[in-house]
Amino acid sequence: MRAFTYDALPGRVVFGTGAVSQVAEEIDRMQKKRALLIATRSAARLVPRLTEQLGERLAGVFNEVVQHIPASTVEGVLATAVKSSTDCIVTVGGGSAVGLGKALSLKIDAPIIAIPTTFSGSEMTPIYGITSEGHKRTGRDMRVLPRTVLYDPELIYSLPPSIAASSGMNALAHCAEAFYGKLASPITDLLAEEGSRALAQGLTGIVQNPQNHESYDLALYGAYLAGAVLAVVGTGLHHRICHILGGHFNLPHAETHAVMLPYVIWYNHKAAPAAMARLARALEAEDAVKGCFDLVARLNTPRSLADLGLAEDSLAEATRLVVESQTWNPRPVMFNDIEQLFQAAYYGQPVYLA
Amino acid sequence: MRAFTYDALPGRVVFGTGAVSQVAEEIDRMQKKRALLIATRSAARLVPRLTEQLGERLAGVFNEVVQHIPASTVEGVLATAVKSSTDCIVTVGGGSAVGLGKALSLKIDAPIIAIPTTFSGSEMTPIYGITSEGHKRTGRDMRVLPRTVLYDPELIYSLPPSIAASSGMNALAHCAEAFYGKLASPITDLLAEEGSRALAQGLTGIVQNPQNHESYDLALYGAYLAGAVLAVVGTGLHHRICHILGGHFNLPHAETHAVMLPYVIWYNHKAAPAAMARLARALEAEDAVKGCFDLVARLNTPRSLADLGLAEDSLAEATRLVVESQTWNPRPVMFNDIEQLFQAAYYGQPVYLA
Repeated sequence: MRAFTYDALPGRVVFGTGAVSQVAEEIDRMQKKRALLIATRSAARLVPRLTEQLGERLAGVFNEVVQHIPASTVEGVLATAVKSSTDCIVTVGGGSAVGLGKALSLKIDAPIIAIPTTFSGSEMTPIYGITSEGHKRTGRDMRVLPRTVLYDPELIYSLPPSIAASSGMNALAHCAEAFYGKLASPITDLLAEEGSRALAQGLTGIVQNPQNHESYDLALYGAYLAGAVLAVVGTGLHHRICHILGGHFNLPHAETHAVMLPYVIWYNHKAAPAAMARLARALEAEDAVKGCFDLVARLNTPRSLADLGLAEDSLAEATRLVVESQTWNPRPVMFNDIEQLFQAAYYGQPVYLA
Repeated sequence: MRAFTYDALPGRVVFGTGAVSQVAEEIDRMQKKRALLIATRSAARLVPRLTEQLGERLAGVFNEVVQHIPASTVEGVLATAVKSSTDCIVTVGGGSAVGLGKALSLKIDAPIIAIPTTFSGSEMTPIYGITSEGHKRTGRDMRVLPRTVLYDPELIYSLPPSIAASSGMNALAHCAEAFYGKLASPITDLLAEEGSRALAQGLTGIVQNPQNHESYDLALYGAYLAGAVLAVVGTGLHHRICHILGGHFNLPHAETHAVMLPYVIWYNHKAAPAAMARLARALEAEDAVKGCFDLVARLNTPRSLADLGLAEDSLAEATRLVVESQTWNPRPVMFNDIEQLFQAAYYGQPVYLA
């Protein structure tokens, strides 16, 4: 037995077809009366149904949700919440919906019920971010951790397979990095392994046969676990790289994860053998590197940074930014090594275990 | 994917040799100043060490801990706590130490740091019990859930193998019943399977070679997980039976668990096939019934209710009490069936899957 510390987070999860119908009951359970519904544009179709289900508990609807949560949007939702005597928040949509809910929760100290429609996992974490004057300030506060999460797989059956695959790779990356994170424990290992397995099987099933709802169910379950381990262990080198590629070079978030994950796993393979053995087991692969490359091949997600439109002369700058970020990683983050990693990922070159 | 609801409980666990040395740091972390140390007699040897480590944070020591937490003891510890301006509670010992800590916590709303020295698992639950006028009142209150648990395996290396084995079987029973409990979920399944595996391997190792500390480490880890699933899923028929045999017929708590578990698993085997498959896998056995019987044979724990001193003419009364308790169970709890179960357990008869 290795020594470990595990900070378990509270939270109620209701998972299953029809879970969304339980929203009023969950508000009553929290002894709240007036819910502000925050919905992203992509979840607009769900607003009438939720409006009906909330009935007299509905304080208002806010649907001007913007990515990266600008401070001006937070002021807007705050005004609506105060005017309508909101005492709890219901969010429906992807990461931006719950992100705005969290920013509001910080201001009015109201609990959140989250209804996710993507694989972002943000609904399981106490991490928030607010953008002001071009700078995104992130923080961790237990008050913003959703009190209840309603995972209703029906809501994601309409997600196109290519989007499901890419955004699912972001979730898988949360599990993969949890295995070698500094705050990893036997408990997060268990959850991350279950999550990796569910995501790999679910995403593969979605791409191979989008009519099979069970694959969506499984992937959503995996995304829940990915969010749960992210909340406890945090992120590592892979997420730092993707953050830099997205923030500085404007690459698309989900696809960048799909491209980079196999390469980062290759980068860390020798430095974190126990983590890699667990990931390989979850992927049902000989080794974790091959498992990741085979998975993205099956999912048919973008395979190189060039495919995503990165200019080759950005690689040196990207390398510099990654090295300067001083991210903890099982293998040291050195300029030449990261440059080699980016070179391989740029051209989508296969890499092997030496 | 099956539908499920999972209410995750918060709590910080520090596991590893030397964890107990972190007690002062954990008090500072909670921003508390004055700790009342509650120690059972069996943990008296640890009081000087904790006194030194707590230093100026020590508000007082209370060591008149009595099983089943009599209301008069609660009044006693309350008086000590108030007199000493206690703002947090440190418990060291088995279930009675943390039980008294919980009763006090209810009165003064102070957080608990628990240092367990047995496999009771009580430190992971928000369940408390107080005995008054011969009646034990139990309840569930989030305020009594220990905020931090320090699992230090060194503290249990002196536990005699026979005691470790019997009390470990109580912990294993928490995992086993979690598989088929009404509040079971894929998450509690994962934790219960990991816990069952760790307990079965750890307890076997302790009995076969008590000098091997790793077995104790593993068993303590399993007991932690057993407590964690108990807290979420609760108990079932097995614990009801043991409670009745202990409370009405004065049989010893831990040994009764060791005798009864294989029989209850046999009783439920056909009614809960998925649960039994997981238990069998954790026990590395062909089937769960054989796995449980083989385990108690390896552990050399008592094998029959007759061995525990139960009078044979008590069986009818015990059967009646179990049936009248109306405990939910995957297989209906019928008089004739329970009578047959008790008959077999009374004589320690092997039972097989029909």
